[in-house]
Amino acid sequence: MKVLVIGAAGMVGRKLVAALLASGRVGEQAITGLALADVIAPSVPASTIAITTSAADLSVPEVAERLVQDRPDLIFHLAAIVSGEAEADFEKGYRINLDGTRHLLEAIRLAGQAAPYRPRLIFTSSIAVFGEPLPAVIGDTQEHTPLTSYGTQKAICELLLADYSRRGFVDGVGIRLPTIVVRPGKPNKAASGFFSGIIREPLAGQEALLPVADTVRHWFASPRAAVGFLLHAAAMDTGLLGHQRNLTMPGLAATVADEIAALERVAGPRATALIRRQPDETIARIVAGWPQAFEARRARALGFTADSSFDEIIRIHIEDELGGRLG
Amino acid sequence: MKVLVIGAAGMVGRKLVAALLASGRVGEQAITGLALADVIAPSVPASTIAITTSAADLSVPEVAERLVQDRPDLIFHLAAIVSGEAEADFEKGYRINLDGTRHLLEAIRLAGQAAPYRPRLIFTSSIAVFGEPLPAVIGDTQEHTPLTSYGTQKAICELLLADYSRRGFVDGVGIRLPTIVVRPGKPNKAASGFFSGIIREPLAGQEALLPVADTVRHWFASPRAAVGFLLHAAAMDTGLLGHQRNLTMPGLAATVADEIAALERVAGPRATALIRRQPDETIARIVAGWPQAFEARRARALGFTADSSFDEIIRIHIEDELGGRLG
Repeated sequence: MKVLVIGAAGMVGRKLVAALLASGRVGEQAITGLALADVIAPSVPASTIAITTSAADLSVPEVAERLVQDRPDLIFHLAAIVSGEAEADFEKGYRINLDGTRHLLEAIRLAGQAAPYRPRLIFTSSIAVFGEPLPAVIGDTQEHTPLTSYGTQKAICELLLADYSRRGFVDGVGIRLPTIVVRPGKPNKAASGFFSGIIREPLAGQEALLPVADTVRHWFASPRAAVGFLLHAAAMDTGLLGHQRNLTMPGLAATVADEIAALERVAGPRATALIRRQPDETIARIVAGWPQAFEARRARALGFTADSSFDEIIRIHIEDELGGRLG
Repeated sequence: MKVLVIGAAGMVGRKLVAALLASGRVGEQAITGLALADVIAPSVPASTIAITTSAADLSVPEVAERLVQDRPDLIFHLAAIVSGEAEADFEKGYRINLDGTRHLLEAIRLAGQAAPYRPRLIFTSSIAVFGEPLPAVIGDTQEHTPLTSYGTQKAICELLLADYSRRGFVDGVGIRLPTIVVRPGKPNKAASGFFSGIIREPLAGQEALLPVADTVRHWFASPRAAVGFLLHAAAMDTGLLGHQRNLTMPGLAATVADEIAALERVAGPRATALIRRQPDETIARIVAGWPQAFEARRARALGFTADSSFDEIIRIHIEDELGGRLG
């Protein structure tokens, strides 16, 4: 089986590639070739599997054509401009997040006109397709009401993925990822950054700012769980999906207080003492419009599994990013 | 106020233009200019208002640019490839129904970069954005689950309209029209054609075929009601819409038996005797997946009004198409 990962240099992309190379298979099938693409060509990991890498800007139509030229059996499409950037740069957001995905779908459809071709395509969508007013726990048939251009672009791509799948051009699965915590690396300016920061910084012996109240509740998955969703979507029986090709992934609903309590259990009060409360009205207002929890019954019934607790999410960060040791 | 009607040569477009010219105003504002566009240039109706007409294929980007060059204050966008054709010709459907609408939105946005410009844009969407499984009565927060490429294209345009409105580029209102009955003209091959045919043909003294059971229930509006929705959307206070720019229009839920009973009340048993039952499995299966009824509470609260009865729908056809006389 030939696999293509678009957006392979991102945080989830790198972890996905590592998992693919570690097992050498997707479900029952051995991986015979792995193509990695991102805006800047990803570095080639050491492996016995044949790996190619390329710099690829999906917003250029010919690029998608080139990427599917080798007819990969499985494509992970993780490439996107993030929410804040898509809101700040309207044209760039639509060009990358909408046109880029459409170019990919079109390249696959047109390849199928030359000779039968219907690859599995895993598309990472987002809970940003939903916006207030929202129920406290969101069901699987919640309507799309995006309140950002990013959420709009993801919702449109979900619709395209379903239609291209219904028409038989592609075997698509869209997965709406929860907010990923603990994100490794440096603090960033994303409004959601503090959800990771109040765990990551204290574990590294550094102070973290908490801009919202302890009662704020949100929906989380670890990077390891996110990779698990992608691999499960790649190997699942898509006949079970019918025409509803997009799924809200299971996650863990937790308040900021839940996060802090878990951090104290895992790393003690020395860690939680490093969290400094510094209320920020702007961030609080943005976060207030976000989803708090989902049922995700359909995805659970289809075998997607979430992290079991926030303690586990913190332990995964310690194992995967800190070499298993507390600082 | 300058008004542009795109798709002015279609059935609803022609009736809309006639209504605009008859009143000479939209809400409180006098119409100072009317531009009519369609794939083939519409004929110029007699009027004291300055009218221009043009042939315009919206799928060509420069065409949208040209259409908004005069900065119309109000734009009705009714142009679309119908459901059956969008399903038969995948590329054409996306080119006209999706790219065409996007070119229009982009032309408006880019015109606004030169000098402030934020026209009211009325977009005709469709109940085809919904597909089974559906509740018997569909609420205002039903998720989009289109089962046709046409429905997918309309759902995507709704999302774009909402995002462009949220960003302040346009003042958009999307209206999901019920199935229009009685459609004037000749029988066509649309699966929904019989809903009009079993009224229109008997009123003209001709036989009509009924391919489904009398118990089939569906959601209707007269052409006159449809024009009323468009005019109301053009003059309403869009501040009441918030970020939810798309509305399911009110209609009339009626079974085939309701239609036939109304026809008998209006035109007597001589008319209904012309309906011949000829079951068609294919049409029955297609229609079985269609919406049956909607709440449309939000649109009603905003002042959109439906036909009061199927008898009224038939009388409107007799008045507007048959010169007020039965054959």
